[in-house]
Formats: sequence, C-alpha cells, structure tokens
Amino acid sequence: MDQEIINKVLEELRKKTNCENSSDTTDKTQNTQNSKSELKEEKIIEKEEKREAFMINDTPVITEYVGCAIGDTVGLVIANIDGSIQEKMNLDPKYRSLGIISARTGAGPHIMAADEAVKATNTVIAAIELPRDTKGGAGHGSLIIFASEDVSDARRAVEVALKDVERTFGDVYGCDAGHAELHYTARASLALEKAYGAPLGKSFGIVVGAPAGVGLVMADTAMKTANVELVTYASPNDGTSHSNEVIISITGDSGAVKQSVIAAREVGIGILKSMGQNPISTTKPYI
Amino acid sequence: MDQEIINKVLEELRKKTNCENSSDTTDKTQNTQNSKSELKEEKIIEKEEKREAFMINDTPVITEYVGCAIGDTVGLVIANIDGSIQEKMNLDPKYRSLGIISARTGAGPHIMAADEAVKATNTVIAAIELPRDTKGGAGHGSLIIFASEDVSDARRAVEVALKDVERTFGDVYGCDAGHAELHYTARASLALEKAYGAPLGKSFGIVVGAPAGVGLVMADTAMKTANVELVTYASPNDGTSHSNEVIISITGDSGAVKQSVIAAREVGIGILKSMGQNPISTTKPYI
Amino acid sequence: MDQEIINKVLEELRKKTNCENSSDTTDKTQNTQNSKSELKEEKIIEKEEKREAFMINDTPVITEYVGCAIGDTVGLVIANIDGSIQEKMNLDPKYRSLGIISARTGAGPHIMAADEAVKATNTVIAAIELPRDTKGGAGHGSLIIFASEDVSDARRAVEVALKDVERTFGDVYGCDAGHAELHYTARASLALEKAYGAPLGKSFGIVVGAPAGVGLVMADTAMKTANVELVTYASPNDGTSHSNEVIISITGDSGAVKQSVIAAREVGIGILKSMGQNPISTTKPYI
Repeated sequence: MDQEIINKVLEELRKKTNCENSSDTTDKTQNTQNSKSELKEEKIIEKEEKREAFMINDTPVITEYVGCAIGDTVGLVIANIDGSIQEKMNLDPKYRSLGIISARTGAGPHIMAADEAVKATNTVIAAIELPRDTKGGAGHGSLIIFASEDVSDARRAVEVALKDVERTFGDVYGCDAGHAELHYTARASLALEKAYGAPLGKSFGIVVGAPAGVGLVMADTAMKTANVELVTYASPNDGTSHSNEVIISITGDSGAVKQSVIAAREVGIGILKSMGQNPISTTKPYI
Repeated sequence: MDQEIINKVLEELRKKTNCENSSDTTDKTQNTQNSKSELKEEKIIEKEEKREAFMINDTPVITEYVGCAIGDTVGLVIANIDGSIQEKMNLDPKYRSLGIISARTGAGPHIMAADEAVKATNTVIAAIELPRDTKGGAGHGSLIIFASEDVSDARRAVEVALKDVERTFGDVYGCDAGHAELHYTARASLALEKAYGAPLGKSFGIVVGAPAGVGLVMADTAMKTANVELVTYASPNDGTSHSNEVIISITGDSGAVKQSVIAAREVGIGILKSMGQNPISTTKPYI
Repeated sequence: MDQEIINKVLEELRKKTNCENSSDTTDKTQNTQNSKSELKEEKIIEKEEKREAFMINDTPVITEYVGCAIGDTVGLVIANIDGSIQEKMNLDPKYRSLGIISARTGAGPHIMAADEAVKATNTVIAAIELPRDTKGGAGHGSLIIFASEDVSDARRAVEVALKDVERTFGDVYGCDAGHAELHYTARASLALEKAYGAPLGKSFGIVVGAPAGVGLVMADTAMKTANVELVTYASPNDGTSHSNEVIISITGDSGAVKQSVIAAREVGIGILKSMGQNPISTTKPYI
C-alpha cells in the first residue's frame, strides 16, 4: 500500500518533470540556451493542435526550399534571381542561379561544409556574410551563397553542404559560458579562400574560442605547437561581427595544422572546464 | 490517512511547479525565448514581496516617462535636452524637445509607427538607430527620436507611436528559428524617408526575413510578383547592425506594393513552416 | 512509517527541483535569461556523472588559467605571447606577457576593475575590445588585455581585476527589459583613459541605460544635476558594438560627478520600474 502511494506520487512527479526531459533531447546544438523557449513553442503548438493539423495540409510547397539541418540551418535555392536584387548584392550577372545556406548558429561549420560543396559541384561562392547571432550565444550565424549558371548545380551544392554540416559541427564544443571550435581540412577550396583568404589546395585549420580570451589562449597554443603559418586573426573589434570570439586560421603541412588544432582544442576545453563548464561536442568529433 | 499524505505531497508538487505554468501565460510576444528568465524574475519579486510593497509607494514619478508597449518598448520625453548631449548627438539646436521610442524587439514596427506619428504631429525625425537586439532573436531593437520646438508635440508623437505599435507588429510572424516580417503603408512619411530613403507620399513596403536566407527568397519573390521598384537591400554585412536578416524596401503603385508584400509573406511563412516551425502573428495581421 | 514515506517523497521532490533552486542562486548577473539553460546544463552533467567523475581527474591543469568571476568572466595569462599573433594584435613587442580578462556579460564593471588593477600593478592596458554580448541581454561583454614585461605582473593584474569585479557589478541594476548601470571612481587611470579618453587622476563617472532611450534620459539627467563635463556619448549606431544602450562618461569635481551619477541612477531605475520591471543590483551597490 505504501509502495502504491510512492508509485503514484513518483508517477505524478515524472509527469510534471517530463517536458523538461523531453526538451533535453532536442537541439543539443545551440549553446543550450533555448530549451525552455522550445518547450514553450511546443506547448503553443500543442494548444493549436487542431489549427496545426489544418495547417499541415495547408503548408504551401515552397519550390525554393531544399532542406534544413542542425543550427537552424536552412538550405534554399533561387533558380533565376531578380535582376535588381542581384545588382544590389554585387553578384556577377553571369550566374543567375543561387544556392543559399543560412543559419542562426554556426559560421565555421557552414563555411567548412560549403567548402566541401564547392569542391563537389560546378558552383562558385558568391558571398559569405556572418551575422552576429547564435541565439544569445557568443558567436555568429551565417549566410553563404553559391552561384551557378544552372540551377541544378546550385541545388546540388546546397544539398552537399546541408549534409556535411552534421560532420563539421563535430568539433564545436558548446557550453553555457562559451564554446571552443576547431576545423581542419587537408585541402582548402573556394569557400575558405573567400572567407579567410586560405591558399587553395593547402591544409587549413580554424581555431575559435569564446569568450574571446579563451580563443586568444587557444590561438597562442596553436601557433606554438607546430610549424604553422598564421593566415588571419579576428577579435571582437576587428574581423568579426562583434562576436565574443577570437578566431585564427592557419595553414602549413597537413600534420602540423592538425597537431596545432588538436592542441588548441585541449587547452580550450580545459579552460572552459576550469570555469566549471562542461563543453561537449555538438555532434561527433571528426578531427 | 494515506489520502492525506498524497494530498500533502501533491500540494507540495503543485507549489514547486506552479511558477512554470504561470510563466506560460506571459509574453507570447518575444520570440518566446525568455519565459524562464521571467519566471526567475518573478521568483525574485516574490522573495522581495515586502520590499516591493514598500517600493510601490516609493516608485518615483518620472516626468520623462510616457508609457510602454509590446517588445519592451518604452516611450519617453525630454522637455529641454542638455546642450552638450544635443551637440554630441548632432541634433539641430532649433529643437530642444525630444520624444523617444526605444525598444528591445522590433525595428520595422517602430519605424512604421513613428511614420504615422510624425504624420499626425508637429515633429521631425531627429534620429533612427537600430541596435542588434531582439533579446537573443535574429533582428534589431530600435531607438527613434522625434524632435520638436514644443514638448507637447514630442509627447503627442510618442503617444501616437506607442499606440500604433500594437498594429504594426501584426505582420511580424515569429518563431524560434527566425521571423518573417512585412510592412505596408499607402503613403510614406518622414520616418520611412529617414530610415530607408522612401519617396515621400508614395506607397511603400518593407520585407524582412530571418535567418537571412529566408529574407533573400522573400525579397526575390516580392520583386517578381508585381511591378515594384527596389529602394534598399540590406544583409548581415551591409545595412543592418549584423542582424541575421535580409531586408528590402520597395515602392510603386499601391496595389503592386501590397501584392508584392503579401506574396513575400506567403513564401516566408512557407519556408519557416517547412523548417518545422510555427510562425505566428505577434498581434493581429493588418496587411 | 507515514512520516518515512513523506520524507522519502519529499527527498525525491527536492532532488528533482534542486537544480532550479541552485540555479537561482547562481548568476543573478545576467539579465536572468539563462537560469533554465544552466539547469539543462546541470542535467546533462548529471546524466554524464560517470564520465564527469572520470573527467575531474582528467581535467588538464591549464597553466594559463587564473580564475573566474561573475558574468562568465575568465582571467587568463600568457607568459610569452606568440610573435605572429602579437604582430596581428598590434601590440607593443616590448611586452611579451599578457593578462586577459574576458567576459560574456559586462563592459563597464570590467573596465572599472581593470582600472584598479592597472593602478595596483606594473602593467599597461594593451587592448580593450567590447563584443556585443550579455547572452541575449542589451549590452556588451568585454576583452581586456594587460601587458607587462614580467608574467607575474600580468597575473597579479588579472587577480586584482577578478576580485574587484564583484564590487564594480554593484551598481549594475538588471531586469528583463534592460539595465541601468553606474560607475564612479575618484581617480581615473589607464583603463578608463584607453576606453573613454578619461583625464588621468581625475574623478570619472559612467552612466549606462538600456534600452537606449533609458540611457538617454539618464544621460540628460546626469548632465543637468551638477557641474560636470561630458567626455563621451555612445549610442547603438556610434561608439557601441550596436548594443541597445546609451552610454555617457563624465568628469569634474569628485562631488559633482558622484551627485550626477546618483541622480542618473534614480531616474534610470525609476523608468525601468515604471515599465513594470524590478531592476536589482547584481551584487551590492557601492556608489
């Protein structure tokens, strides 16, 4: 009987705390800041169940929509961009088809993914713009535009990038106080050239830490670990959109770049842990 | 007896989980990101009940305070601005009275409301500045300053704008991943001229989408829908405060502008829905 | 026996609700937006208890780590900065040791604390950069870099600043809609000179209000209250990193500066209260 009471109450408890657990499973991506808002979102959705049911049939098919991915990333395509917008965007009029990767959270992962996409397709990088975002986190979001003469090429680039974002988020280690973020490729292509002036075809690494001081120590560590060359240095006042990050990019021999990036990762995660945080990989480490 | 235990415990449960339910009812406005922070706020308030009771009588009457509105918007008035501040602000010394609309969330709605206010009163627009804000959302906040020779005019402008903000938030469709935002007026006035170079007295529309890629597709759709002229194009790197938006403004015949804005709305909401979001009007659609 | 059941269940309750209570006591600094995210963080930690236990022993000792403080502030030191990074940072090559104060939330408090640190140690201020941050709040974070010839001096500066941040947060009054923030020193030193062009050795005050309109009224009040001189005026478009603040700095006789700052505090808190907010000191008022 007593056990029954306990069970009844514990069940009640489970019910009351359920939503919280459910919110835990969603969206480990963002710096975990939005669990509650999403929960609320879900509740609103629940309340409007009937309207929602109506809307599902009602959702217009948007031909420009390609797909979405982690980090509130959306992939879109415009088959034939309007001339006056193309002009204001300063795009080469030769390319009328645009592929678009746009995200609330993440710049490095998207640029890396775009780099793979541009290697794999017949497209160029028309623009890389980095809003100050991450939904209250310390970093950027991103807007990356592929251009091509044929719409199927632009669409393919978006598809490749959307798929690769899962991988490139692997070495983004987020926590409430900030993040440590690492990227490495054996062969840089047009997206990395556009964003950081990376030398084409060479090994390239990116080291990011937030808050900015963490990034500075990571950068110093990366440079001292192996014989690599500093390509860019960005800080809140210069080279970022006032994000709370220090970001460096490096090039050199493949082994050296990788070694530097790994050393920076250890020190970055170590500092965040020393702050009492628990930085964890957004998806699955790949470096 | 057992029932008594159950009741006691369930009451305890209710007490512990109560605040959460209450926080659900507040503030559907903002991108629903702050429900929990408000909860905490409320708890702090509870704790300080006595102090609070004391403070209510104690709250100083601030003569500059006019009122507040949705989006953490506050309306203020300065009867006779200090000369050295006026100089640093580069304001025309002719106008000593300032009316102020300042908000955490929303730029378009406030500029549209200010446009109505300036039509209805004997004021000019002294400044429109757009911080990167929305409390962790993808857009801007706003600081709009009316100037007048007489303080009653500045106050009246603030009152008109505060009241109109409720309406102009109607076509702001927010969700966790971003927002789609539309504005239309049959006759642009000084606020729209100041902010976007709108031709005075003509029909004018604004199309905003976040994340930025959504805005770009909305913009392309708007331009292709009817015979309208592109006035401005803004993106994270240019023309915004690094917000995660693409914003265009358009002019033309009244019917054409309205048609373009409506088409952009459909595609913007459609993309956000395709992302699994549920964008809803902040107040009540007016276009 | 019944008592035993009650105890058991209440213990369960306590366990389930514990994190919330604990999160309440941490971090009243931030605009209270992150209580829930921290809760989630803690839950993740709980789930990974074993891994965490492993990690505690595993946490590398980061020699660069000095300590942390309120506002996700971290203090770091680099004994001998890498030459290529030093060059990109435009630092004087004479100083090879860097002390770093980096924070998600707070610019004023950190600059004031750095000012005390630079007075007390044999260091210079190499850089002050202000990201747009506060974790979804209206203001800045900060990156402050001390430079010295000897690493012990840099470390000492960081230690002094970390300790003083607790005090300087005292007149930061936060609430969900914004904040009112005041700073005063009887004798400005190198950090205030670097950040605001403060005259060395003179009384100096800083007045900050968010959203920006609140800051403007506070600024006007400060200037009218006593015979003080306006040093800087910053707003979302000019002099901030697009934060939603108006910030002024003032100098003059000690009594006049203090009087002005106090008058600005009253009006700032008054406006926020009129908005239905409950602005409270982050730590303990010191002015």
